[in-house]
Amino acid sequence: MERAVLGRAGPAEPGPFLSSARGPEPPGSASSACALAVAAVLPAGGCGERMGVATPKQFCPVLERPLISYTLQALERVCWIKDIVVAVTRENIEAMRSIIQKYQHKGISLVEAGVTRHRSIFSGLKALAGDQPGSRLSKPEVVIIHDAVRPFFEEDDLLKVVKAAKEHGAAGAVRPLVSTVISPSTEGCLDHSLERARYRASEMPQAFLFDVIYEAYQRCSDYDLDFGTECLQLALKYCCTNAKLVEGSPDLWKVTYKRDLYAAESIIKERISQEICIIVDREDKEHVAHLLEAVLKNELNHVKVTSGAPCPSGSSVQRVMLEQCYSFVCVNVMTTDFQNTQKFLRMLEESNLSILYPVVVVSVHFLDFEVGSLSQKMENLMWIREFAIEAKRRNVLLCGLLINYSQDEQKVQESLRQGAVIIAALMKDRNSALTGQLLVA
Amino acid sequence: MERAVLGRAGPAEPGPFLSSARGPEPPGSASSACALAVAAVLPAGGCGERMGVATPKQFCPVLERPLISYTLQALERVCWIKDIVVAVTRENIEAMRSIIQKYQHKGISLVEAGVTRHRSIFSGLKALAGDQPGSRLSKPEVVIIHDAVRPFFEEDDLLKVVKAAKEHGAAGAVRPLVSTVISPSTEGCLDHSLERARYRASEMPQAFLFDVIYEAYQRCSDYDLDFGTECLQLALKYCCTNAKLVEGSPDLWKVTYKRDLYAAESIIKERISQEICIIVDREDKEHVAHLLEAVLKNELNHVKVTSGAPCPSGSSVQRVMLEQCYSFVCVNVMTTDFQNTQKFLRMLEESNLSILYPVVVVSVHFLDFEVGSLSQKMENLMWIREFAIEAKRRNVLLCGLLINYSQDEQKVQESLRQGAVIIAALMKDRNSALTGQLLVA
Repeated sequence: MERAVLGRAGPAEPGPFLSSARGPEPPGSASSACALAVAAVLPAGGCGERMGVATPKQFCPVLERPLISYTLQALERVCWIKDIVVAVTRENIEAMRSIIQKYQHKGISLVEAGVTRHRSIFSGLKALAGDQPGSRLSKPEVVIIHDAVRPFFEEDDLLKVVKAAKEHGAAGAVRPLVSTVISPSTEGCLDHSLERARYRASEMPQAFLFDVIYEAYQRCSDYDLDFGTECLQLALKYCCTNAKLVEGSPDLWKVTYKRDLYAAESIIKERISQEICIIVDREDKEHVAHLLEAVLKNELNHVKVTSGAPCPSGSSVQRVMLEQCYSFVCVNVMTTDFQNTQKFLRMLEESNLSILYPVVVVSVHFLDFEVGSLSQKMENLMWIREFAIEAKRRNVLLCGLLINYSQDEQKVQESLRQGAVIIAALMKDRNSALTGQLLVA
Repeated sequence: MERAVLGRAGPAEPGPFLSSARGPEPPGSASSACALAVAAVLPAGGCGERMGVATPKQFCPVLERPLISYTLQALERVCWIKDIVVAVTRENIEAMRSIIQKYQHKGISLVEAGVTRHRSIFSGLKALAGDQPGSRLSKPEVVIIHDAVRPFFEEDDLLKVVKAAKEHGAAGAVRPLVSTVISPSTEGCLDHSLERARYRASEMPQAFLFDVIYEAYQRCSDYDLDFGTECLQLALKYCCTNAKLVEGSPDLWKVTYKRDLYAAESIIKERISQEICIIVDREDKEHVAHLLEAVLKNELNHVKVTSGAPCPSGSSVQRVMLEQCYSFVCVNVMTTDFQNTQKFLRMLEESNLSILYPVVVVSVHFLDFEVGSLSQKMENLMWIREFAIEAKRRNVLLCGLLINYSQDEQKVQESLRQGAVIIAALMKDRNSALTGQLLVA
């Protein structure tokens, strides 16, 4: 097998040696000529005993979606991965099929997990070896092995190990040790401690030339399959392949304990709250949307604020939705109806945006609190409760927000600031219990 | 020095060999006769480079309070720890003094941190050695060394290492390795991997006979002080003391990365949301508070629900406050005033309850939505905005919640259920942006 020198791991550019298998590709392009077929195996048969909960951790819900779906989503967006093989236990196969269907994952093959992690990986490799009758899978040149409970990698993390595997036969991500590692005596006392700087924690992803790792698994002992923990070690022991160690990013961490699920949920909420799009009312003659935009930009650091009108099709709003913004503010000026908000909710319904994450929509109403009865206006707006029940079924979290558009400039600014803080809280917490509420800034 | 056989680490009973130094103690009791003087040293001079933020991680806010304050709080509640010495860098000494004052920490001494963790610990030990003029500290028999960024231990965790240190001279908590540890070759390839089951991660707390660890620090080299990471190793190298390794609980984890701050915040929010106390309206002739109590118990698993009237003094509500419940529901029946809620807010003000954690108060109003104008009722209740601003200054998060107490039993139940979900959300998120809002169930 040719081992072309590909150079050191560089930036996240697939480069000519990786071809897009699932995405569109110009016919006869250079990339298809020197394509490197890459597949991924995801052992997901673990029972999550360290988590202290009954559900295996890969199936634990994060923002109401199973953790493994986030990992699949992250693998799917890498267009040069051809096949993804997931090994799950027999009792979880149906649940896994439902997850794939509900969250519209593509290009996933399921195999039955073994009783240990190594046996599950071996099952995945056998499916890829192409020697099984009726299999639609073909043997890849390089195979990535990853964990179902590490959803936070970037394409670049995969690219680095794949490039290194192509060159060295095997490669794995490593991280510095967080704690000192010590060796206990048989009496449970300190025998010696390891010099922390001389060791590394072995993390995932790892990548291998398929023939190397498949041969290692075919040759290894039952003891290895039942008690081993390290794929790189198998490649070394049975194929004399010294894996290249690639310094990984902190994002490669593994969801292990219950606290890690909390961290995962916070990270995901933060990631999907990086951008707010303001849906401008076409009747907004006074350009209040721009006032709100300015205050949001000022009050919410690190959040990108964009704005646009909801139609015609092909508008900037649709572009924002395609770029996966999950927080929207619909501006309704001096009116207690929901026309603008409703129009936008219909647009959302036609998109697939809320399949993967709950989408927050804040219906903002600019009203002069001092003219007429505020409570009467609120009564008119109580319809939001009905809209919210409907929206929530589609994973859209709808709230109303009243901003005081009075004659007093200072009161307007104060209300806008308060409104920005409330919008930020609704975005950050994404708590479905508050849908249908009418908040006052 | 006598090393009494104290038996294996048992349950979290201080037992006769640990005396309460800061708490009240019966004079001439057995515990004071065989008292073991214990102090703690907390190195807190680190700069938190792994966190990726400018603030050192021990000073990062969690629910708006610096992380180190949680660790101090956890040490303080252990009545048999006599002195707590914190080593902070010169530039952080004033900030640390403010933290101690603001959160009313007691029995803390500050020393200047060294440039490395070992040098900071050595500074703390020197202060405890009692050979410094004017020091109010006296030499302890056993010293605990802990990290400022590990706030989630239990008294039992400390007790186990202290008991083991008394017996063995040194002891430290250990945990199973989460990742395989590997040794890289000079070329950055895998040389060999360690058998995971034969090693342990060294965690904190650790404890030592004071004379053992102080001697070790006095005898160790500058190289040890500058590049070493493991106190247990110093005790072994310089005092031939093989530390006893104690299996620690998963709670001993260290806040290392930004994601750990997220996890810490979620854990703390969860801990302080384990109990709701319903403040019953004395005019509640229809016993609606009991309806709410039943629904809360039914809808919120794992939450303890209690109830009581707000006065006279010595009431069950005050007992609940002393036992540190941080979520309250004030029931107001068929009224749009806040008498009951206001009475309770005054009680809260007189307590110290909101010094350490934000306290959530939900002012619940049972009103028949179908009799009279709901919006008129809401207008009357808008006063909550003023009360909430006042309460927020004292770290009390006040919200209003309307429950439909109509003639239709089914509507009442539905509204109660919805109310329980909203109360749970307010407790869980503790987001101050929503204070002063009037929510409708």
